Amino acid sequence: MVLAQSTAELYDQYKAKMQQIADVRNAIAVLGWDQETYLPEKSANFRGQQITTLSSIAHEMFTEEPLGHLLQELHSRGDLDPVSAKNISLSLEDYEKNKKYPASFVAEMSQTTNECYHAWIKARKSGTYADFEPVLAKMVALKRQETALLGFEGHCYNALLNEYEKGATTTMLDAVFTDVKTALTPLLRQIEQKPQVNKDFLHLHYDRDRQWEFGINLLKAMGYDMKAGRQDISEHPFTTSFNPQDVRVTTRIDENDFGNMTWSCIHEGGHALYEQGLDISAYGLPAGEAASLGIHESQSRLWENNVGRSLSFWESHYVPLQQAFPENLQSVPLQDFYKAINQVRPSLIRTEADELTYHFHVMIRYEIEKGLLDGTYSTKDLKEIWNRYYNEYLHVTVPNDVEGVLQDIHWSHGSFGYFPTYSLGSFYAAQFFAAAEQQIPGLETDIIKGSYTNLLTWLREKIHHFGRFYTSNELCEKVTGKPLDFKYFLDYSTKKYGNIYTL
Amino acid sequence: MVLAQSTAELYDQYKAKMQQIADVRNAIAVLGWDQETYLPEKSANFRGQQITTLSSIAHEMFTEEPLGHLLQELHSRGDLDPVSAKNISLSLEDYEKNKKYPASFVAEMSQTTNECYHAWIKARKSGTYADFEPVLAKMVALKRQETALLGFEGHCYNALLNEYEKGATTTMLDAVFTDVKTALTPLLRQIEQKPQVNKDFLHLHYDRDRQWEFGINLLKAMGYDMKAGRQDISEHPFTTSFNPQDVRVTTRIDENDFGNMTWSCIHEGGHALYEQGLDISAYGLPAGEAASLGIHESQSRLWENNVGRSLSFWESHYVPLQQAFPENLQSVPLQDFYKAINQVRPSLIRTEADELTYHFHVMIRYEIEKGLLDGTYSTKDLKEIWNRYYNEYLHVTVPNDVEGVLQDIHWSHGSFGYFPTYSLGSFYAAQFFAAAEQQIPGLETDIIKGSYTNLLTWLREKIHHFGRFYTSNELCEKVTGKPLDFKYFLDYSTKKYGNIYTL
Repeated sequence: MVLAQSTAELYDQYKAKMQQIADVRNAIAVLGWDQETYLPEKSANFRGQQITTLSSIAHEMFTEEPLGHLLQELHSRGDLDPVSAKNISLSLEDYEKNKKYPASFVAEMSQTTNECYHAWIKARKSGTYADFEPVLAKMVALKRQETALLGFEGHCYNALLNEYEKGATTTMLDAVFTDVKTALTPLLRQIEQKPQVNKDFLHLHYDRDRQWEFGINLLKAMGYDMKAGRQDISEHPFTTSFNPQDVRVTTRIDENDFGNMTWSCIHEGGHALYEQGLDISAYGLPAGEAASLGIHESQSRLWENNVGRSLSFWESHYVPLQQAFPENLQSVPLQDFYKAINQVRPSLIRTEADELTYHFHVMIRYEIEKGLLDGTYSTKDLKEIWNRYYNEYLHVTVPNDVEGVLQDIHWSHGSFGYFPTYSLGSFYAAQFFAAAEQQIPGLETDIIKGSYTNLLTWLREKIHHFGRFYTSNELCEKVTGKPLDFKYFLDYSTKKYGNIYTL
Repeated sequence: MVLAQSTAELYDQYKAKMQQIADVRNAIAVLGWDQETYLPEKSANFRGQQITTLSSIAHEMFTEEPLGHLLQELHSRGDLDPVSAKNISLSLEDYEKNKKYPASFVAEMSQTTNECYHAWIKARKSGTYADFEPVLAKMVALKRQETALLGFEGHCYNALLNEYEKGATTTMLDAVFTDVKTALTPLLRQIEQKPQVNKDFLHLHYDRDRQWEFGINLLKAMGYDMKAGRQDISEHPFTTSFNPQDVRVTTRIDENDFGNMTWSCIHEGGHALYEQGLDISAYGLPAGEAASLGIHESQSRLWENNVGRSLSFWESHYVPLQQAFPENLQSVPLQDFYKAINQVRPSLIRTEADELTYHFHVMIRYEIEKGLLDGTYSTKDLKEIWNRYYNEYLHVTVPNDVEGVLQDIHWSHGSFGYFPTYSLGSFYAAQFFAAAEQQIPGLETDIIKGSYTNLLTWLREKIHHFGRFYTSNELCEKVTGKPLDFKYFLDYSTKKYGNIYTL
């Protein structure tokens, strides 16, 4: 029956099915958003169950045999236009990957993830890594099984890296993190020799409502479309999208830490601009999806760091900020503010790290994950390994497990291979921004004036618009003329901190 | 295979399936809640599509053959306990009803509903019923087809009435509305002869935030569990439930009409207390669902009118209200406030009507629906019929279609048979409340003191707890000792308005 139909008819069937699957997945995202923002306290269990049910439905819809036949048939036809052909080949790839998981494995993973998350919560309460270790060991064993199911070339970790960043390998990441170690370590040591900048005034009392308003204005200034999104409060800031015309961000407000809200707004705003910029006519199709986690992170980091932590950015935003909080900032010159928001200081917690030491946190996790998967490391020794790495790379002593090996939620969720995308995001961001500086005449003047239209248009045309059409590295070459090169991040950092710390 | 399994095993399968279906339906409810409260402006179309997809999935899940076999098998087994047996027989009834709709009919209805809704919106903009009429005629024709599909005894309208209020018939409703006409008309005429009470002070400026806080306090006082629900703002107030531990209400605030927020809070609060009182262990099963729309409305009306518009209620709430709005109410005595909130005055708009004239609005719609379905009336004449009825029963002249025949959304949604449940709700409420007054010692004193625990406990035990186990009338007999009797509403009204208007 399939064979008798025209390619156009079959492609329409494919589109309709993918859009239905997207509807279910986006409904799950709405339930998730509500869970983090407005869910009544007592409803957590039922919500968990509702999400599980919809997730099974989405999974079933995307693993049904007729969809597989349809994809294979379309894949074999020669008369698809390039974008449609790419959609089909990516969907087929996703489909075949999903089919690699036997139902028994999916059930065991779901069960273990649940156990592991609760063990992590418990361990954080007791402050004891030992409470987490046995279940984490089970999780690691399952993740190893997963690498075998998925298949890989080279290191088994590649199978998992590929889940978050298609094409990423240990070979590539070893090189990147060697650069981090060899190039950023001396820079960090240099900074440590210099007098530290003052940021005490960022920890005075900043009124909640005025912070909220300032954050909303930042989002609007960036070009975030408030008619196609909204901001709410949640414990951990995040971005979620239900379609390009409903992309929501959240923030948190700490009245004693102005940075918390500000960087979350700009960071999540960067993610959201990407999602709002995806092709709405490709809803549910690969062409309407983000390229990868690394590219997603490049968008948030570009706005947060390359734009948002630049002196140019604050040329236009600092006066409104002073007006909003005259009691704290009236007597603080712009230069001092700029230095304060760029303070570099090795610390314990990844999510609170500055943009330089951040990558040491990521590197440590990368090394640990790689070692756990290939058997070099055992979960039994993880606390010691963790503490040793922090001492070695960041010169900090880990005082307890909660601020150490238990700090991230990722492993308890079974997310191995995710961390590296954070660093890749920053490095792509630096390279993209360097290209933007070359390609957009007057970009710095724009930024000084608080006008980001040209930058956003450029990002939309060069990056957002393509969805998943290109892999991260293909996209990077297309935008910047070469594959990912750490040099851009190094140049950016050397120049920026050289100036701030008079190195 | 089914036959070889034990009844307990089969019943567990049934429960699991029903809970999954409930998860999908509740996810739809979350999407609907979000649509009315927080949806970004541009996202309406995508949200509509997402809801449609999930609705089809829920429909498919509930019409699958294996579920039918399972229900039939369980229905034939003799070893179920009474509650389980009732769940099965109700689910089987629902299942068989759903199976009566051919896919082509469902598709045509969905299509026509969409058209009809947009025609209604358009007609309200142009102010012309004629813009709505052709599509409404199509809808009426479809609803007639639906009565044939569903089957009925007596009047064809019974098939539709049964959808909202199992067991309701035109015979029963003709009798009820005859009572309305014969008994309430003279009461209304008597009131019209008397000097009107003053309610101008309810239309002074009432600050939004103080109204919000007062409303939240009312909800809490009623016993609404804020940890198992929340209140938000929407254009039209509503209650929605995703499970008994997540029952949400919305309200609207008009700064120039204090009543708007107050009555919506108490009314929706009444609906919400019912939902929060349903048996959580019967999630997804008939035993965990509300009895009917009429019984649901009885709960909102009981709180709104029998409790919330009583003098006793305001004995405890009026002082806090005066303290919240001293500028408007300091010099208004409680008696005057009580009269103002109970003003009776025939008017054009159902949703703004007082609790006496309200039933004439409903009766008009009932007569029209009955006539449209049996062919006595044609949509072509509907405007004239509407205006004539309003003139006859309410002595008001309809100035335009928007405030006349176009005022309700129901017909555009294909909801024929829904309106009567509004009146039934009030009449059940009066009868239930009379029983509560008899059965709960010191109820009036409780209410004067602002304590509703005994009342809520009584409602939970006598009504909420039973879910759909009894039909409305069975429940009414169980709670009050007799079937629905209009006399209770008449007694209540005669006493109340006799006092207010010194009749």
